Amino acid sequence: MAKLTYRFRDPALAQLALTHRSAGKPNNERLEFLGDALLGVIVAEMLYDAHPNASEGELSRLRAQLVNGQALAVVARELELGDDLKLGSGELKSGGFRRDSILADAFEAMVAAVYQDSDFDACRNWVRELFDERIAAIPRSSKDAKTRLQEWLQAKGWPLPQYELKDSHGEDHAKTFDVTCAIEEPQALVAEGRGGSRRAAEQDAAESVLRQLQESRS
Amino acid sequence: MAKLTYRFRDPALAQLALTHRSAGKPNNERLEFLGDALLGVIVAEMLYDAHPNASEGELSRLRAQLVNGQALAVVARELELGDDLKLGSGELKSGGFRRDSILADAFEAMVAAVYQDSDFDACRNWVRELFDERIAAIPRSSKDAKTRLQEWLQAKGWPLPQYELKDSHGEDHAKTFDVTCAIEEPQALVAEGRGGSRRAAEQDAAESVLRQLQESRS
Repeated sequence: MAKLTYRFRDPALAQLALTHRSAGKPNNERLEFLGDALLGVIVAEMLYDAHPNASEGELSRLRAQLVNGQALAVVARELELGDDLKLGSGELKSGGFRRDSILADAFEAMVAAVYQDSDFDACRNWVRELFDERIAAIPRSSKDAKTRLQEWLQAKGWPLPQYELKDSHGEDHAKTFDVTCAIEEPQALVAEGRGGSRRAAEQDAAESVLRQLQESRS
Repeated sequence: MAKLTYRFRDPALAQLALTHRSAGKPNNERLEFLGDALLGVIVAEMLYDAHPNASEGELSRLRAQLVNGQALAVVARELELGDDLKLGSGELKSGGFRRDSILADAFEAMVAAVYQDSDFDACRNWVRELFDERIAAIPRSSKDAKTRLQEWLQAKGWPLPQYELKDSHGEDHAKTFDVTCAIEEPQALVAEGRGGSRRAAEQDAAESVLRQLQESRS
């Protein structure tokens, strides 16, 4: 546990976080449920603060990059959690301490163990230290919404989106533009966008079309 | 905002939480992303504490009952969030202030607004007040894992599970039992279970089979 960077008041909690269900009960499954949720909110807030202009969809996508099983297994390995895992004999023989899913689950459980051993702020600080550089390292999608929409339609061989200025209002130095973005395929769709420039309004409308396409696919 | 039971230092945050994307930008979508995660962890912890013997799968199922769009819309209506929603003209005409998804999103955004206006503890207290009775009101699945597995297989017309005692060890007053639970349909599966009695070990094994079936379906 040399690499944990958090010192437990109650070491039994850390032990529990490292006990895989193959070792019997009690094990880390319940802690993992709580830790998954804790990690979700802490990383959500970090991204929220780091990317003040990112849309909800973009924040979700970034978070999924950071907290999937493979990414969490990397963190678990840095913390050397595998060395202290408690596994049943079957998992032990088959090298369960090296398996991504087992390591990721143990890391999530450890987040909950830190929370239960202290409080939300201490847990958040611990997670922030682990994720600060990771969050700085993932670039936001460098392509804007108009570009992404256009490239996607082109790849499918479908007609390009039509943007139309519908309205502009407000005084000259603080104008607001309303535009629409319309596509024909895979379905006829028109979305509205608004912004402080025509270009910003078009981006907004394109983002809305992308979101509707995503929703209708899911 | 009479029913909010939380008094904002910064009322602009509450306004933002109530601004639907149809009203333009800024709107509540980013706050909703954060609020969804906050609600997830707060309700997760409440269930964790309320059901010390519930499995991870059971906790997930209970949480999904409490925080789905329909359930959150009920909370939003109790808080009368619909009265203060800011909607675009299209949504306004079509009665968007009554729509479940818009109300649920506004509630999630409000959770994040409370958090940003104060801190995690205050936000948690606010959410706990809203969910205390709801959590007390949902019963845990009263059926145990063996019963659920058996009923499910029977409903499909498939063979019943076979339980087998593999091992028991430890002294008489603190014995541990290892059993297996095997099914043939929808796929051949064998899971191990462990417990302080043969029955408890069988429940554990049945739970494990149910979990594997769930994982292979998703």
